[in-house]
Amino acid sequence: MMVKSREHEIIRRWFMAPGLALQRPEIELGSGDDAAVVRIPPGKRLVVSTDVLTAGRHFPADAAPGMIAHRALATNLSDLAAMAAEPLCFTLALTLPEADPEWLRDFSAGLAPLAQHFDCPLVGGDLARGPLQAAIGIHGLCPAAGAVRRDGATPGQKVYLTGWAGDGALGLASLGIDAPGVHLNVAAADLPESCREHFHNAYFRPEPRVAFALAAAPLLASAIDVSDGLLSDAGHLAAASGVGIVLHPERLPFSPAARRCASQATLVRAALSGGDDYELCHTADPVDEARLMAIATDLDVPLTCIGEVISGEGVHCPGFGIEPELAGFDHFAA
Amino acid sequence: MMVKSREHEIIRRWFMAPGLALQRPEIELGSGDDAAVVRIPPGKRLVVSTDVLTAGRHFPADAAPGMIAHRALATNLSDLAAMAAEPLCFTLALTLPEADPEWLRDFSAGLAPLAQHFDCPLVGGDLARGPLQAAIGIHGLCPAAGAVRRDGATPGQKVYLTGWAGDGALGLASLGIDAPGVHLNVAAADLPESCREHFHNAYFRPEPRVAFALAAAPLLASAIDVSDGLLSDAGHLAAASGVGIVLHPERLPFSPAARRCASQATLVRAALSGGDDYELCHTADPVDEARLMAIATDLDVPLTCIGEVISGEGVHCPGFGIEPELAGFDHFAA
Repeated sequence: MMVKSREHEIIRRWFMAPGLALQRPEIELGSGDDAAVVRIPPGKRLVVSTDVLTAGRHFPADAAPGMIAHRALATNLSDLAAMAAEPLCFTLALTLPEADPEWLRDFSAGLAPLAQHFDCPLVGGDLARGPLQAAIGIHGLCPAAGAVRRDGATPGQKVYLTGWAGDGALGLASLGIDAPGVHLNVAAADLPESCREHFHNAYFRPEPRVAFALAAAPLLASAIDVSDGLLSDAGHLAAASGVGIVLHPERLPFSPAARRCASQATLVRAALSGGDDYELCHTADPVDEARLMAIATDLDVPLTCIGEVISGEGVHCPGFGIEPELAGFDHFAA
Repeated sequence: MMVKSREHEIIRRWFMAPGLALQRPEIELGSGDDAAVVRIPPGKRLVVSTDVLTAGRHFPADAAPGMIAHRALATNLSDLAAMAAEPLCFTLALTLPEADPEWLRDFSAGLAPLAQHFDCPLVGGDLARGPLQAAIGIHGLCPAAGAVRRDGATPGQKVYLTGWAGDGALGLASLGIDAPGVHLNVAAADLPESCREHFHNAYFRPEPRVAFALAAAPLLASAIDVSDGLLSDAGHLAAASGVGIVLHPERLPFSPAARRCASQATLVRAALSGGDDYELCHTADPVDEARLMAIATDLDVPLTCIGEVISGEGVHCPGFGIEPELAGFDHFAA
């Protein structure tokens, strides 16, 4: 008797396809066994992290499966970027209420371009029936000398941010889901098409700043990716480094779409507490600023100096009263 | 302003505690940054896998949190055992409906003994509000020469099984959740206390066969862990190796509790299709049988020869008609 299950057919068809099970010399055994076997090149370290996205919390349950897939992998790659680590491979634990072939095809198709772009094969996973949720385990490589960490900020360094601030929260608002104090000027249904597309991409297709982080790594004193809002994430960096951070809200870089569709107060709230930006917040010595900016320009990544590292603790926004509800997204706030 | 969130307090308190963030020389940077940094010793390979457990599917939603935690880590360690890989570290993506401090304390306390027993620190994770679900990413080490895989079975080898067969499904039945055709002789409420305890431990506290797999590795031609029932998992091993497998139901090893509380037909069904046993099914050359048995005896692990590898394909049970519904647990069966 030949045992064949629907579950294993699904895995073979959509998750062991050549577009995801990419060949890399380090992957000595990929998907299909009880575990994958991976070679870490001499002089390198394994960098490992996990992020879970759950329907109704991290994305609308009816979002396009390809968008959910892209977002799930992109947010995990963003954690590698924050360590200045090179993507190596990933695992996927996916639960879904039913095995809809079209949904699975689109989810798989949404993962593949990003996996291919970063040469980051899917090497294993688990698929089970349950509430829609995707937990990715991401694996990268950094030099033996170490990764860029949160605890390297020292007073006198500048604070930088890649990309645009607040577009993630505005993207969520454009889907009709407002974060506290983050409202668009126009109803979601009346958004100009170009803005809608910009926000949609900002939310579902964040660009992991891997290339910038790898190129700039020698100049990065500390880094964190912005997932819960700048106040919260800069706060983690400050706490890990035992320093204070001054942020200047008036310097925050907002996208043209954001400036067109939201008030200044909303923009600042979206940036400071909105979350979902998956940009890189890092610190560096001011003498390296010109070199950092040149790297960013080469890679076509917006890069803005948004503050300074000081002695002390916490995050300070001079001339800007921080309302308590701006302290960043907290899954378990009371 | 010092940004502190409940989410990060929970993580620090229950998941970065010394009992889980164990010191190991390979862990150069553990929990608390965007990712962990791990050194793979020279001559070793990284072995990586992920398993997700979701409430109502893989465990009753009201199960004791410590039991859920133990089971989640044990089933992942079982995947390492199936590769004859030594545990290294793990990540945890946990979603739960609310941050109940007692639940989290007990979940954390349920992880710690197993993590400590296998010297397998928690090096990173994600915590979010959502349906109760735990996705673990498990990391191990195997020799550069390779892991024990599913595709090494060749005709003439014998098929072996560690531990008892079917206790996982009987454990589920003892919780009042019957798999197809798996019913206890007595109502769950009337089970003798010693049997209830045995089944409860079999279900919630499966013993990952890591020590046996590491000791026996040179003698193991192929291996898989039994998670979906012997028919299904032996079928995967047969398919990967391009061989057939003959299983002898009358040789299956059943625990005293199982023999006391279930009919022979139920025992065989529980073993062949019940799943949740997390025992090791492997093949080996018959000349190595005495050495294998000696290793098992030394480690106090029951080991039984349950069949043979033959030319051909599929899994065959001579003299035993396999009903279609016995083909193993399939999360997405039509």
